[in-house]
Amino acid sequence: MSRTIDLNADAGESYGAWTMGDDAALFPSLSSVNVACGFHAGDPLTIQKVLALAKRHGLLVGAHPGYPGLPGFGRRILEATPDQVYADVLYQVSALGGMCRAAGVPLSHVKAHGALSTRAWTHAETAKAIGHAVRDFDPTLPLVVLPATLLETEARGLGVPVVLETFPERAYLKDGRLAPRSMPGSSIHDPQEAARRAVMMVKEGRIEAIDGGFFEFQVDTLCIHGDNPNAVQIAQAVRAALQAEDIGVRAFLPHPREGQV
Amino acid sequence: MSRTIDLNADAGESYGAWTMGDDAALFPSLSSVNVACGFHAGDPLTIQKVLALAKRHGLLVGAHPGYPGLPGFGRRILEATPDQVYADVLYQVSALGGMCRAAGVPLSHVKAHGALSTRAWTHAETAKAIGHAVRDFDPTLPLVVLPATLLETEARGLGVPVVLETFPERAYLKDGRLAPRSMPGSSIHDPQEAARRAVMMVKEGRIEAIDGGFFEFQVDTLCIHGDNPNAVQIAQAVRAALQAEDIGVRAFLPHPREGQV
Amino acid sequence: MSRTIDLNADAGESYGAWTMGDDAALFPSLSSVNVACGFHAGDPLTIQKVLALAKRHGLLVGAHPGYPGLPGFGRRILEATPDQVYADVLYQVSALGGMCRAAGVPLSHVKAHGALSTRAWTHAETAKAIGHAVRDFDPTLPLVVLPATLLETEARGLGVPVVLETFPERAYLKDGRLAPRSMPGSSIHDPQEAARRAVMMVKEGRIEAIDGGFFEFQVDTLCIHGDNPNAVQIAQAVRAALQAEDIGVRAFLPHPREGQV
Amino acid sequence: MSRTIDLNADAGESYGAWTMGDDAALFPSLSSVNVACGFHAGDPLTIQKVLALAKRHGLLVGAHPGYPGLPGFGRRILEATPDQVYADVLYQVSALGGMCRAAGVPLSHVKAHGALSTRAWTHAETAKAIGHAVRDFDPTLPLVVLPATLLETEARGLGVPVVLETFPERAYLKDGRLAPRSMPGSSIHDPQEAARRAVMMVKEGRIEAIDGGFFEFQVDTLCIHGDNPNAVQIAQAVRAALQAEDIGVRAFLPHPREGQV
Repeated sequence: MSRTIDLNADAGESYGAWTMGDDAALFPSLSSVNVACGFHAGDPLTIQKVLALAKRHGLLVGAHPGYPGLPGFGRRILEATPDQVYADVLYQVSALGGMCRAAGVPLSHVKAHGALSTRAWTHAETAKAIGHAVRDFDPTLPLVVLPATLLETEARGLGVPVVLETFPERAYLKDGRLAPRSMPGSSIHDPQEAARRAVMMVKEGRIEAIDGGFFEFQVDTLCIHGDNPNAVQIAQAVRAALQAEDIGVRAFLPHPREGQV
Repeated sequence: MSRTIDLNADAGESYGAWTMGDDAALFPSLSSVNVACGFHAGDPLTIQKVLALAKRHGLLVGAHPGYPGLPGFGRRILEATPDQVYADVLYQVSALGGMCRAAGVPLSHVKAHGALSTRAWTHAETAKAIGHAVRDFDPTLPLVVLPATLLETEARGLGVPVVLETFPERAYLKDGRLAPRSMPGSSIHDPQEAARRAVMMVKEGRIEAIDGGFFEFQVDTLCIHGDNPNAVQIAQAVRAALQAEDIGVRAFLPHPREGQV
Repeated sequence: MSRTIDLNADAGESYGAWTMGDDAALFPSLSSVNVACGFHAGDPLTIQKVLALAKRHGLLVGAHPGYPGLPGFGRRILEATPDQVYADVLYQVSALGGMCRAAGVPLSHVKAHGALSTRAWTHAETAKAIGHAVRDFDPTLPLVVLPATLLETEARGLGVPVVLETFPERAYLKDGRLAPRSMPGSSIHDPQEAARRAVMMVKEGRIEAIDGGFFEFQVDTLCIHGDNPNAVQIAQAVRAALQAEDIGVRAFLPHPREGQV
Repeated sequence: MSRTIDLNADAGESYGAWTMGDDAALFPSLSSVNVACGFHAGDPLTIQKVLALAKRHGLLVGAHPGYPGLPGFGRRILEATPDQVYADVLYQVSALGGMCRAAGVPLSHVKAHGALSTRAWTHAETAKAIGHAVRDFDPTLPLVVLPATLLETEARGLGVPVVLETFPERAYLKDGRLAPRSMPGSSIHDPQEAARRAVMMVKEGRIEAIDGGFFEFQVDTLCIHGDNPNAVQIAQAVRAALQAEDIGVRAFLPHPREGQV
């Protein structure tokens, strides 16, 4: 294969008696997952189960920290100070990292969830706090970031390895921002259209912008939103389309099968 | 000095805007602390601050996991399944362990908090779940236990190193159980009496029981309840009385100043 | 119709981004619902939506308070003191009562959820605390209880009106206790068998016990567990079977369409 | 007395095992209190105790709803939608209102806490949501507001009765905004200076602004921040200074001793 790409999804977003997404159906299509750490979703028992499932499927496992607050699922901006963001991210990454260790799965990356991620795209102090937390936990641990955001800039500035991510089922503006969810057409629901976009993203390094022209980028991983009702179909279509173009779905890191657990 | 003993207290029990105890005044008298992990007390920023304080005072730092639930401060028995206890303890120890690593302080031990500890004294499944969680996180990590409880038995059975703890300011029954808090005299409030009992515990390996006779035990560490109004006075009196008897207050482990962080 | 019976289910058990049950599909089969109050399930926005749905279907609305703690969904016994149970129940009933008032729906009853209910069946102090809270909120407000439990006894002793409830899809012991969920056959999954049992319960005032013989009782309302995967089918089958026997499904109270909101 | 003024403080801000402020020492100086409702502070048992205390002191009791989230004590702006704000405020006011009813204390007013209040000063949708919630609970219930804010405007627009509040121990800008806490001199710690300002506020209807000139306003109630370390001293000094000027400290509403409970 001439080219490979990672295919990731957020996972472990159930909580206690409540289920979200269908991790078991989704995982066969993926190469990496970002696991909720208990602040916006995911309780310890849920985390334990999703780690076991990810291990069975040979997926890379990352921590997916978010703003605290189950009621808002981490999707509401919270005016937390940088100190609070740092401590909250470090705590969550630590919790997931230790549970990975006990499960015999290496912790491979960190990716900020929801509003914490959105805020870090444009708020340098939040971006720095996330970067510091990841670096202080493990300076070799990569952070998954949206290209052309302050989160990318600040993480690179701190020497945190970055993994560049795009979203085949989300519309972009030509400056690289995601089209707001309130804008018509901001989400792509058709698996075939998502698959076409995924292929274009990987082969051409660009995507049509909803406001005209193209957004150009580098990309290491494509994200499927696991809480979408048709997430499984989209992931399957994306994976099939990539493979039809001779693009392998493979983790962005060689899987550390020894030593690093 | 012919003999040394560790002196520990629970710490980091503040939460957000709420303060509990006076860690800064208490720490100079101690050799180790057990830090609340966020489920019954302690938020990430509080944890970060208490780790920095413990580091300045050269104290051993342990994780102090409890049942989830801020309203009850971890003091209400919760009929959690062993699976839930395992995952909850592993998560909390992991969170604290990672924050220790980032702070440059080794994680030295684990001690169960409140009702989780009480339940583990007599409920084998809970005791085993705690032991498994500690062992799966790190098989060399010691668990602080009350002597003559199922928690001691099960931890030993799993090969988890144990550190034996007694309470100079709590009354005992002759079978080794703590006198229930509802019983008159169950708590000792006079610092001098607590100090006298601490010395007796260390020198004689026994203490007068509230129901007659003596409870005999081995002891590695004495615990002062940090949330008591007079905790600082008790800790100072205990330390002074021990030193007057030529008993050094020293951590139960040599402080791993290198490598293990 | 010679006889009517109320058919109730627990509702509003979603939380934030997480959905539980299918209230919209279930409500057409019911005459009353018990709405989670935010401690074990149900957030304010979820409550608001379920009240509007219940109003559209003309259902009686009750408060369904539980032990605090989202992780356990209120299904884990918590050793709360009677004072805590009293205050927690009063708070939850008040929150739901006020939201009912704003929604123009009368609050018709209270029913304890999960482990809080289970504990109140055999623990007099808990039962009394629940009864006191309901009476102090509104001395005319009925409490839904399992017959032949301390909760029934204590509620009657306090003068709280009681509504007697049985479960067509749960197996009984001959002394009236529900067969523990760990016992094979404790849950009935076949809608037709649940329907047969519902008819027997109403017509004969008894049900076959899993340990032989019959449990005899009075009954005002039959409960369908809304979180069961086949709850909608069971409710439809029960309703159809009752109507085939000329038993009307009708709320246990005349719906107070005026004044009492 | 030629003039009276209400003197209020936030109260019931303890949570479970954690204490905040000293309600018992503060209440003798006050005529009304705003009681935390459990989302940012205050648990049901704490609420119950503070209602009993307020009743003994004959104080007006109001609900003090805030953004959800114990970690931030309701002091962090949360980008909640108006629907969420409406439901969260209605839930909290309802919970407190019902507990008041059970305690035999009328619910006299509502006042938004912390960041929810701050956001409502300048964000019309949030202000409207608060106003709607109060009006839907009880159209005669007054809302305590800062003069010259969108919260005042929107509340008046909805027909919600307003009570105008100023802060003797906070510095003002001449446009009526509170000086940000990050600005030197934004908080007045000297009880005598706070007392002088309180008298000026009531007698002259204005106060010196920190950026020159005066902020002019009408005022119905003066607020003392109960979580300040010297809150009790400030409240006593304010009360004494007012009385020395023949200004009575009296609730902004006649105490409804009958009927309205």
